[in-house]
Amino acid sequence: MNPEPISYQPIGQVASEFPGYAPSEEMRPRPSRIVLRPEMAAGLLGLEPGQYILVLFHLHRSQTYELRLHPGHNPANPIRGVFATRSQYRPNPIAATLARIVSVADNVVHVTGLDAQDGSPVLDIKPYSPGYDTPTETTGPPP
Amino acid sequence: MNPEPISYQPIGQVASEFPGYAPSEEMRPRPSRIVLRPEMAAGLLGLEPGQYILVLFHLHRSQTYELRLHPGHNPANPIRGVFATRSQYRPNPIAATLARIVSVADNVVHVTGLDAQDGSPVLDIKPYSPGYDTPTETTGPPP
Repeated sequence: MNPEPISYQPIGQVASEFPGYAPSEEMRPRPSRIVLRPEMAAGLLGLEPGQYILVLFHLHRSQTYELRLHPGHNPANPIRGVFATRSQYRPNPIAATLARIVSVADNVVHVTGLDAQDGSPVLDIKPYSPGYDTPTETTGPPP
Repeated sequence: MNPEPISYQPIGQVASEFPGYAPSEEMRPRPSRIVLRPEMAAGLLGLEPGQYILVLFHLHRSQTYELRLHPGHNPANPIRGVFATRSQYRPNPIAATLARIVSVADNVVHVTGLDAQDGSPVLDIKPYSPGYDTPTETTGPPP
């Protein structure tokens, strides 16, 4: 199996207060903006203040990855596979973070909850749906 | 703003019972497998049966998109922007679906809950974390 690379054109980028690394817990309470390419603005119709969205963005500072690591770079944490962690150093450094919409104006979505560094390319925005995105029996029967 | 395309090498692909389109509700209860490239298997350490994972995969049958659409292709549904829907026809056709692990064997993760067509390229697997992936006040203060 030798899968073909897949190429995506970002729909926009994040403008945030964080030019470099900061802990997620520090970033998420702060406001930030998702600035779409103007031609993408029509795709925002129906997104409302207060609504939660799932934002997929590229971790553009993540240039390497480890398949096994101590989570949080803390040697006290047992070694895990990268797919069992939310490390930013992943084979495909795509983040998936819930954010809450403060307002939508033209091609700009004002949010809280994002943990994206300034300039992060945004790949997709999806509405959060509890029925779809919460673990339930519909996710599948127990093993 | 003219962002550079971003290229990802899939970490593997889905093997499912669904060679073509089927409704999500029909696909999710059925078992499927995430077959990683063998060299990625080390990244699975620590994933356990019963655990929920967020699977990012490429919607490889989605070749076009509309910025505005009737959700579910149903004219009775008011027109929405694509980013306010979970339509598979998106500018960057990446799906984010919760699945539940049945078992892990070498480079293969057996799951339920996926709604991926057979052969879908997989971009990433992340552990689901209620504290991170559920809307709460930590997602941000109300607007």
